[in-house]
Amino acid sequence: MSATSSTTVNGLSITSVDGGVTAAAGFRSAAVHAGIKKSTALDLAIIAADRAVAAAGIFTTNLAQAAPVVVSRQHLERTAGRATAIVVNAGCANACTGATGMADAIEMSTRTAAAVGCAAEEVLVASTGVIGVALPMPRVVAGIASAASALTRGKGSETAHAIMTTDPFPKERAVRVDTSRGAFTVGGTAKGSGMIEPNMATMLGFLTTDARVSPALLQRALIASARDTFNAITVDGECSTNDCLFALASGESGIEIDDDTYPALLAGMLDVSRELAIGIVRGGEGATKLIAITVRGAVDDADARRVARTIANSPLVKTAVHGADPNWGRIVAAAGRSGGRFDVGRTSVRVGDVLLFENGLPHDDAAPQAGRHLQGTDIRIELDLGTGSSGTATIWTCDLTAEYVRINGEYRT
Amino acid sequence: MSATSSTTVNGLSITSVDGGVTAAAGFRSAAVHAGIKKSTALDLAIIAADRAVAAAGIFTTNLAQAAPVVVSRQHLERTAGRATAIVVNAGCANACTGATGMADAIEMSTRTAAAVGCAAEEVLVASTGVIGVALPMPRVVAGIASAASALTRGKGSETAHAIMTTDPFPKERAVRVDTSRGAFTVGGTAKGSGMIEPNMATMLGFLTTDARVSPALLQRALIASARDTFNAITVDGECSTNDCLFALASGESGIEIDDDTYPALLAGMLDVSRELAIGIVRGGEGATKLIAITVRGAVDDADARRVARTIANSPLVKTAVHGADPNWGRIVAAAGRSGGRFDVGRTSVRVGDVLLFENGLPHDDAAPQAGRHLQGTDIRIELDLGTGSSGTATIWTCDLTAEYVRINGEYRT
Repeated sequence: MSATSSTTVNGLSITSVDGGVTAAAGFRSAAVHAGIKKSTALDLAIIAADRAVAAAGIFTTNLAQAAPVVVSRQHLERTAGRATAIVVNAGCANACTGATGMADAIEMSTRTAAAVGCAAEEVLVASTGVIGVALPMPRVVAGIASAASALTRGKGSETAHAIMTTDPFPKERAVRVDTSRGAFTVGGTAKGSGMIEPNMATMLGFLTTDARVSPALLQRALIASARDTFNAITVDGECSTNDCLFALASGESGIEIDDDTYPALLAGMLDVSRELAIGIVRGGEGATKLIAITVRGAVDDADARRVARTIANSPLVKTAVHGADPNWGRIVAAAGRSGGRFDVGRTSVRVGDVLLFENGLPHDDAAPQAGRHLQGTDIRIELDLGTGSSGTATIWTCDLTAEYVRINGEYRT
Repeated sequence: MSATSSTTVNGLSITSVDGGVTAAAGFRSAAVHAGIKKSTALDLAIIAADRAVAAAGIFTTNLAQAAPVVVSRQHLERTAGRATAIVVNAGCANACTGATGMADAIEMSTRTAAAVGCAAEEVLVASTGVIGVALPMPRVVAGIASAASALTRGKGSETAHAIMTTDPFPKERAVRVDTSRGAFTVGGTAKGSGMIEPNMATMLGFLTTDARVSPALLQRALIASARDTFNAITVDGECSTNDCLFALASGESGIEIDDDTYPALLAGMLDVSRELAIGIVRGGEGATKLIAITVRGAVDDADARRVARTIANSPLVKTAVHGADPNWGRIVAAAGRSGGRFDVGRTSVRVGDVLLFENGLPHDDAAPQAGRHLQGTDIRIELDLGTGSSGTATIWTCDLTAEYVRINGEYRT
């Protein structure tokens, strides 16, 4: 993901850069093996700003919220959007762990605060892993001390590794955004890879920027960028107990975000978020194909999202794509049960560039050509609902495989 | 399913009898191999009453309704609930087939009507199989003539075979209901086994009875009995284009259904429907385990159904059960994202008779015992949401297996 690329969005120049979550000025990180995972892999990380900075967060909507989610939300509320550090562990979700879990999450914040020199409420806490198991706190405490003493700008990719659970590869991205006032940087890292459904962010994600922005504007940009990225992906329709997405803004670039430069910040956050979100899907449990489902011509964008998401979560569509079967009938059937408003007789379905269904009738002669597209790893499914309105949405998902069943049938046993 | 059993429900005696969909007096059926399926299996059947009788129907809520669904609904409306015959084929759904498909469904009704001697609108039409493929009408027409000439009371089980697609076994059931006024019979057959989600009936189902009942009361009993049976099952959350459930009542028993005897009719229809519905789940694509999910202590029954259904459709719960992993955390997480209203701290989770989670905390020492229950084939999962209200519901589902992926990744190719 660190290959240099440069794109121009709305007159802004966006260039990929190295460094992931520590690419932006004013941030350091470190990752250690604390011994929470059974393997010898990295499993605890701290991302720290040089001082308290603007912070924003989005949290899972699941009623069963893990202790770190509860603690982080409280901290953001108490500080009105300021934070100095994020502490995160993999291997244990600290969810459904009762009062002990709450005490453990709070202790993670106080230990981190003491080590980096800030107030406990300026620390955001995140955990991912098995539900219902208590954190091994002596190891966590030692890991926090060890990580805090090793903070550096160069360890972004180690942090990307430390937050992985069943993810097959780490996910990080950073871009430099050039504006007429100068440049700033946005970076980030995220982890999947099961229990992924957009009902906020669906995973852990951490963004950093050296733009200078108020907490309120940072929160607005975070919500806006998540809508079409982290909230537009699904692996298995499962919204977890631990989902959270944090953004920290150091201001070190000196580029002030106001009404004029807000589009630049949003473009940078969208770029990083999209890359991380698609990486989560591509690395979904058992996934062999990335599937982009685009719905156009819907009554409105919400209806387009509803239709696209139902198709994205359809086991019959996901298994058909896995088998490279151009089974447009399952796509139409999923759209039909989605609750979206449309007339099947005016709907068209494309797989890749191949028109398979139009005006209520199949183009079966095109099936072999569509089948060839489905044998690739980057699949496009497009529906035009033909309502005369222009509602549109894209949802990314992956295929459903026997490997998903294997991973999740053997996760704990 | 023909093993004789007798139960007493609300003072009524209900005894299982042989004969399936032709057990009730006044009905005949026949099944033939018309050549719609690629194999040599039975694939077309007619169920016929001796004359026009009371009829009721429930249809899929999918926007993409197959031609036979559209035709059957119109026929029931035009006759105000009278029908003489049901004609059904497997191997081709006649869905997403445009004007040709509508003409074909209508021709199935006219040909059947001519053969059994009734008006076309007194024929209900049902199809199941691949979407988007036109019916081979010459074969269908010949099959209808052949079946109509072979109608007999003894062929219920052949009809149960003829409607199968990926079903591993036929599903039929009949019961004699003894009331203080005398006895009547309720029988039926149904098919699954993928694209199964209760958004009406989720499959094809045909019930017959020799009770004497008005179309309106029969419709009421059909809706009431489907609610906790056919509408309380799910295999993969997919609501198909072709779902329909029909009931025919011949009146031949002479037992009049009024306010006093309605509970007896409902009890008989519930018994048959429950057996057929559970059979669909047990024979779900790739299924190795039947899972009954019961939620109690919800704010109301609708909330209980919402929670139970979300758990039932959770890929992580279904794969955990497949792997005999007592992963109550996934159950709590699915409940938490269901939209049901409850406090996780007051919720308890049982797997079999084993309490695994209570008052926000796990009983991990009980996990091995729960794991042993999960190694069986009939699994019970029970949640008490502890709201203080008594909302309750049971949803039946099956495990998610690599075989489901294989069946659906190779269905057409």
